[in-house]
Amino acid sequence: MSSQRPHFGRVAVIGTGLIGSSLLRVFRREGMVDELVGCARRAETRERILELGIVDRALEDPTEAVDGADLVIIAIHLGGYAALADAIAPKLKAGAIVTDVGSAKATVLETLGPRLPEEVHLVPGHPIAGTEFSGPDAGFAELFRDRWCIITPPADADPSAVKTVAAMWRAAGSAVETMDAEHHDLILAITSHLPHVIAYTIVGTATELEEDVQAEVVKFSAGGFRDFTRIAATKPDFWRDVFLTNRDAVLEVLDRFTEDLSALRRAIRRSDGAEIFNRLSRTQEVRKNVIDLGQDAEWRR
Amino acid sequence: MSSQRPHFGRVAVIGTGLIGSSLLRVFRREGMVDELVGCARRAETRERILELGIVDRALEDPTEAVDGADLVIIAIHLGGYAALADAIAPKLKAGAIVTDVGSAKATVLETLGPRLPEEVHLVPGHPIAGTEFSGPDAGFAELFRDRWCIITPPADADPSAVKTVAAMWRAAGSAVETMDAEHHDLILAITSHLPHVIAYTIVGTATELEEDVQAEVVKFSAGGFRDFTRIAATKPDFWRDVFLTNRDAVLEVLDRFTEDLSALRRAIRRSDGAEIFNRLSRTQEVRKNVIDLGQDAEWRR
Repeated sequence: MSSQRPHFGRVAVIGTGLIGSSLLRVFRREGMVDELVGCARRAETRERILELGIVDRALEDPTEAVDGADLVIIAIHLGGYAALADAIAPKLKAGAIVTDVGSAKATVLETLGPRLPEEVHLVPGHPIAGTEFSGPDAGFAELFRDRWCIITPPADADPSAVKTVAAMWRAAGSAVETMDAEHHDLILAITSHLPHVIAYTIVGTATELEEDVQAEVVKFSAGGFRDFTRIAATKPDFWRDVFLTNRDAVLEVLDRFTEDLSALRRAIRRSDGAEIFNRLSRTQEVRKNVIDLGQDAEWRR
Repeated sequence: MSSQRPHFGRVAVIGTGLIGSSLLRVFRREGMVDELVGCARRAETRERILELGIVDRALEDPTEAVDGADLVIIAIHLGGYAALADAIAPKLKAGAIVTDVGSAKATVLETLGPRLPEEVHLVPGHPIAGTEFSGPDAGFAELFRDRWCIITPPADADPSAVKTVAAMWRAAGSAVETMDAEHHDLILAITSHLPHVIAYTIVGTATELEEDVQAEVVKFSAGGFRDFTRIAATKPDFWRDVFLTNRDAVLEVLDRFTEDLSALRRAIRRSDGAEIFNRLSRTQEVRKNVIDLGQDAEWRR
């Protein structure tokens, strides 16, 4: 089970949007599975994933979809986890592995842990990959290549199940890191959730400007604002669920940010050039580290 | 003077960093000038621009550099404008055009207006173009292609001088827009200055985390944080001067932003999913407009 490329009899992917459909494509490409089952609420999505050839069967009912599956991948919004777990729990096969791709992880252990049968192995995961697009047509098998995937197994997780989930992500091209769910949530609150809180806010602020000013903001957006519109382009229900489920860590880093913003605002208001300079200088080292780690290529705007 | 591609006897570019050296390259490429004079404080910069062949003469003293120039382009930090104007004013040729590339514009009229002789034509400008890199080696003639350049002539500006400056930017490949300095400053406060205030702050907040957490923030920065490090990568003295010189507009939009951020924070703290959703939904239209206007290509992270 823990070989470099695992093989599964039946895999069920619940939710076939950007991430779910990309994973389905990875399974197809790697030939890692005998039967691929996709589960989608909307009839047109089910038709589409069959047309795309990325599933063998497309089902509406998750309870039916997980029947006999060796691996169940939950790729729906975090807000739907509790109801989904209640629905699938009775049909899960003993020894099956359940994983997910959600952006907050303590909530997954809390929500799924008590709801799943003891003889099922829960190994939550979070691929640090995405685009601003959604739906099964937006997916592509290369989405996870050279990306990180963080897995956050509970303390008593089955080591062989953890190895299998890690091997699946490696087969997708990702580097795998294992950590505590709480630690994941703090790191991601800073690297991803706070940036999204802020980007949505600044773009929202712009929407309340007078109409003519707003048109010009869009026209001259190349100076920085454009990058924020891109960060704030994901569907709102996705981020609503992330902010609700990783609430404490998000509020914690948001408070730190707000303190620092007040200090910079004060320096600007007082025209304190030396203090502004000091505050702006702190960022140079972090940027250098990001480039050194190859997280960003040399780049021209 | 106002033909599609203007021609100058002598052009002096004061400051030969990213923008100044890119403009020098444009003049060379377009053959728009008989003699190109570059002015740089540091001896190694002067050596370098001569080596690069982008100037005919490289001078340390701006007073000397503007002597006999038909067009003077100020491409230094906003904080240096007053001293520079005092130094060059006595040597400026009657009928010479003085322009600049600074990111705040009301301050330019206030600082340069009273200091320059009456018989000189002041036509401030601001190319909406840049990269995170600096210095004469970072420049390239294509920097301004398909970018906006905003010019903010004073109410009593000489129409022919305005046409000449506009023609110069068109020759650089830019689309030119003319507007009031105050209006420019409000628009740019939103599209550029506020995003930079925020990006510098969030990256600064990350620098105060415990060292091990900080290392992981860099490692997993692909989720949004990376984009902020990029926005916050410009040299701090540049942005210090922008924040100081466009202080009122920056504080105004910063206050609007802070209000909106508090409202979103409150919704998260109260776990008010409907309110979070509403606030996040406001951004979709703006993003769509940015893409429709071709300000951003389809893009995959």
